Amino acid sequence: METTQIATQVTELSYALDTFYFLVMGALVMWMAAGFTMLEAGLVRAKNTAEILTKNVGLYSIACIMYMLVGYSIMYPGDFEGGVFQSLANIGILGKDDADAAAVAAGDSYYSTLSDFFFQVVFVATAMSIVSGAVAERMKLWSFFAFSVVLTGFIYPVQGFWKWGGGWLNAGGFADFAGSGVVHMCGAAAALAGVILLGARKGKYGSKGQVNAIPGANLPLAALGTLILWLGWFGFNGGSQLQVTGVDNANAVALIFVNTNMAAAGGLVFALLLSRLWFGKADLTMALNGALAGLVAITAEPLTPAPLQATMIGAVGGLIVVGSIVTLDKLKIDDPVGAISVHGIVGIWGLLAVPITNEEASLLWQLIGVVSIFAWVFLASFVVWFILKKTLGIRVSEEEEYEGVDIGECGLEAYPEFTSAE
Amino acid sequence: METTQIATQVTELSYALDTFYFLVMGALVMWMAAGFTMLEAGLVRAKNTAEILTKNVGLYSIACIMYMLVGYSIMYPGDFEGGVFQSLANIGILGKDDADAAAVAAGDSYYSTLSDFFFQVVFVATAMSIVSGAVAERMKLWSFFAFSVVLTGFIYPVQGFWKWGGGWLNAGGFADFAGSGVVHMCGAAAALAGVILLGARKGKYGSKGQVNAIPGANLPLAALGTLILWLGWFGFNGGSQLQVTGVDNANAVALIFVNTNMAAAGGLVFALLLSRLWFGKADLTMALNGALAGLVAITAEPLTPAPLQATMIGAVGGLIVVGSIVTLDKLKIDDPVGAISVHGIVGIWGLLAVPITNEEASLLWQLIGVVSIFAWVFLASFVVWFILKKTLGIRVSEEEEYEGVDIGECGLEAYPEFTSAE
Amino acid sequence: METTQIATQVTELSYALDTFYFLVMGALVMWMAAGFTMLEAGLVRAKNTAEILTKNVGLYSIACIMYMLVGYSIMYPGDFEGGVFQSLANIGILGKDDADAAAVAAGDSYYSTLSDFFFQVVFVATAMSIVSGAVAERMKLWSFFAFSVVLTGFIYPVQGFWKWGGGWLNAGGFADFAGSGVVHMCGAAAALAGVILLGARKGKYGSKGQVNAIPGANLPLAALGTLILWLGWFGFNGGSQLQVTGVDNANAVALIFVNTNMAAAGGLVFALLLSRLWFGKADLTMALNGALAGLVAITAEPLTPAPLQATMIGAVGGLIVVGSIVTLDKLKIDDPVGAISVHGIVGIWGLLAVPITNEEASLLWQLIGVVSIFAWVFLASFVVWFILKKTLGIRVSEEEEYEGVDIGECGLEAYPEFTSAE
Repeated sequence: METTQIATQVTELSYALDTFYFLVMGALVMWMAAGFTMLEAGLVRAKNTAEILTKNVGLYSIACIMYMLVGYSIMYPGDFEGGVFQSLANIGILGKDDADAAAVAAGDSYYSTLSDFFFQVVFVATAMSIVSGAVAERMKLWSFFAFSVVLTGFIYPVQGFWKWGGGWLNAGGFADFAGSGVVHMCGAAAALAGVILLGARKGKYGSKGQVNAIPGANLPLAALGTLILWLGWFGFNGGSQLQVTGVDNANAVALIFVNTNMAAAGGLVFALLLSRLWFGKADLTMALNGALAGLVAITAEPLTPAPLQATMIGAVGGLIVVGSIVTLDKLKIDDPVGAISVHGIVGIWGLLAVPITNEEASLLWQLIGVVSIFAWVFLASFVVWFILKKTLGIRVSEEEEYEGVDIGECGLEAYPEFTSAE
Repeated sequence: METTQIATQVTELSYALDTFYFLVMGALVMWMAAGFTMLEAGLVRAKNTAEILTKNVGLYSIACIMYMLVGYSIMYPGDFEGGVFQSLANIGILGKDDADAAAVAAGDSYYSTLSDFFFQVVFVATAMSIVSGAVAERMKLWSFFAFSVVLTGFIYPVQGFWKWGGGWLNAGGFADFAGSGVVHMCGAAAALAGVILLGARKGKYGSKGQVNAIPGANLPLAALGTLILWLGWFGFNGGSQLQVTGVDNANAVALIFVNTNMAAAGGLVFALLLSRLWFGKADLTMALNGALAGLVAITAEPLTPAPLQATMIGAVGGLIVVGSIVTLDKLKIDDPVGAISVHGIVGIWGLLAVPITNEEASLLWQLIGVVSIFAWVFLASFVVWFILKKTLGIRVSEEEEYEGVDIGECGLEAYPEFTSAE
Repeated sequence: METTQIATQVTELSYALDTFYFLVMGALVMWMAAGFTMLEAGLVRAKNTAEILTKNVGLYSIACIMYMLVGYSIMYPGDFEGGVFQSLANIGILGKDDADAAAVAAGDSYYSTLSDFFFQVVFVATAMSIVSGAVAERMKLWSFFAFSVVLTGFIYPVQGFWKWGGGWLNAGGFADFAGSGVVHMCGAAAALAGVILLGARKGKYGSKGQVNAIPGANLPLAALGTLILWLGWFGFNGGSQLQVTGVDNANAVALIFVNTNMAAAGGLVFALLLSRLWFGKADLTMALNGALAGLVAITAEPLTPAPLQATMIGAVGGLIVVGSIVTLDKLKIDDPVGAISVHGIVGIWGLLAVPITNEEASLLWQLIGVVSIFAWVFLASFVVWFILKKTLGIRVSEEEEYEGVDIGECGLEAYPEFTSAE
């Protein structure tokens, strides 16, 4: 065989490996949809469980469709000739893979465009999943779906473009490796806007300022959801290296896996210790949120820290999340699953921590990124939620809230035999 | 290093990547066993849950053993010298991998024979999993296992050979990329035969023709099961490309991942919309079956549609499944989880939709495939179920059905503390 | 392009594939943490569920941190210059990947050091997970965590070094491919020491010698946990080949996948049959433990058996586990989930079965391995448990045990709405 032929074969093999790596990482991120679904289903009351399940599987599906129709080309306009709706044209209608054999041979492409689309589409679903937990137990199902259409099709892609699509935040130097800001704080900002307009659940805050615990109905599901997210996060962060071929890339992906794992471990242990010291008990839900906080914290920069640093970045995230959950309750911001604290407050910590280990990042641009992404997503979401409130309405009736949204919205119960005595 | 040596190294590397890809895809398909287990456990009543769990883990194990003993060599006789029981000889007793280094160097083999066996063995388990849901809550456990032996060892492999083993359906031009017919409709046909001989659950159909809903006990498990199946289906369809090396193959696998995902999303959204319009409620179980319907629909041809087409093929599947579930109930065909509708009726839709996007397929041969596979599996299964009915019996006693098959068959309860008050 | 350049490219591509394979296999093993969590949560009573969840997510996190700080360098001192705490220095503080491009080009390294660390760290968590089930429903949470620190940081790595770090057991000829002894029997020995010092749960053994069944609260979770472990085991055994490139390695990994799957299937079917014959019922929990027994049994040697042999090795494991569970109860060794039987007794069977198919192994050295690992882990663990018993105490108060450790240790209930009537 001739040398040129072999060289082409090697290039094609490299292309296949990077594409396969991307698809496997994307499948892990898709699996995070199950993680959010189980986490949220475990942390709400039995009477609101079927509805939160419906929201989660529904929002994932809506995210996929909207991102294909418009979102992907808003976020990555450079990849498409002819303007904004080219993702519909190129991806949706043509199923076109720009990366053909000639392009690969010429060195213009190292993985399938469609594998990139798959990886991106599961990211937007993640952002939207964050919202569903925060507004649980009192929001109208179809208003939520309407908001999902706008967030996944428009609001998320605009700020995604700013950073990952090559926009101004990227040009300025804002660093957000896998999306502590672009994905997690984005979801939390949209959730916060919704929660403010929606108000707290009945009975959550007493007239004398006391905070009443409303325990989740099924903690094994919450633990399962957390472990699913932990696993999926290897894809979320590990896939964000975008390439595994070459010694440097392979080593980078390995370090990212290790750091992601260590940050979650650090977050869990420190949240558990803090809750033991503060509340006197090893609060499982705090531990789970601590692990997620560690994961969110490391997501902005999982590559430059050493594993011990990653553990500490996660640990600080775990401490922050406990304090944040308590504080938000004092502010009467009712977030049944702690999503705003985990993904928003800790997302900000993750972004601000980047310059500690990454010399190329600056605190200034990290702050600019935080403020601009938060402002855009919060304000745009607020407007959309506000319009929904004035039109469809966003809150279920008091009676439906009391009886549970499962019967009202879905016409069935999640556990008809376990709670029938009540 | 000499060019020949490098060329060999590249060929071997390609072999390793394709084998690894096959194993990862196969592991995802194995994971579908957990999906079916959770889906079915969530959709039956609490008193029948331990038994459906036992059926699912049991059938998976039986499928693996029977397919190794006889099934694989019935289905792929061409791979083996010396006739029908060579899978026992080559795979089982010798653990022989035909693909040795010399064969690879000669270009005769591009992945491990054993990785192919692994991928195939999890497919037959999928087909059998479909049956367990349809006959739930009233069938004798050991008669079910006896049927599993016959289906996985003989009935499935015969029609599998017709298509994938190089038999007459394949020669004629029947197209079924990943098994809407060979796997899904096959399972549904076997289930239908069983359901007809078994009869409906007590109380399902009233004397005046009304259909009584028998709600599932644990809908989070049903949602989890659906999401597991969704994830596993990336392996089911993505692995059916059989090779990831080469630009064309890599692009194909990526497109298959995207289309599989979009079809599920389309199926879920449209089933949810239809159930909202038709029943006035966002029925979660319909949404879940809609996602599965989308997945079944795209399985016959996940490669030639563009993603927008895949979404629509899935959406039609989602609409069909809602109508089919309602219709089967009118016909008093009692299928507790909707398996016959999801895998059978929508499987047929998937097969007939192939010619829309694949020019090489013909509606005639798709119809021939549907009729011949259905006829073979239904009739053969009917005979086996009938023999079982006349010998071991297939239905539990009325008393056992009333008290739940868990106590009767398994001697334990799935949720002893949650339902004890009843 | 020149030949040398291409050769380098091929070497680097091979490095990337092996690293990626290692990370994917490691992610599957990490997923086993969810398997143990669900299995144990399903098999305890509702009132002890939140605590077992907390133990499982906590021990995983502690294992990761302790193994990074000290364990890895105790176990693999040869990889590090400068002694015992070099894993902290090299992995933790430097995040150093010894495998740089020059080392790869020189053929000194074929995968990332950090991917190896990731794969190893999830193994030690597996060993510790085994302990939590056996001591469930009566042990103090923080004493358990204290033990976790010692086992994962010191006790496990010492015997791990004996075999996998190149120590005396390895030099002598002890064969333990993926850890029936080093991981599974190790965990069981530590558990046994704890169970002996801890005593049985109140009410488990009657004054007249009768054994009272204490049924698990949520069997779908137990089934899910088993299926998660089954899936994760493909990574556990498949990754222990350590390399997938090259035809021989790829074929080996494929055979390991097939054998792992067949052994689990064999274990499940035979445990189910035996429980049917012995107890008259198809006991689901025995079937699940049978599958796990099959997996443990094949772990010592998943490569030399043919699939039919693997099925039989697993089947014997399935038979042993049923007998062992009954026997341990007669000995009043109270192990709520059967972990000592599954991982300890069957782990020994797996080790002793190696010489049946692997000519290079000897029964003598297998026995030496069993005795030395068991003796070290049991005695060291006994000392640690004993010190904990005399200081912190290891058993909760009678009142707390009666009311459930969830309230006492975690301050919350796992299922507040399902069991509130009791």
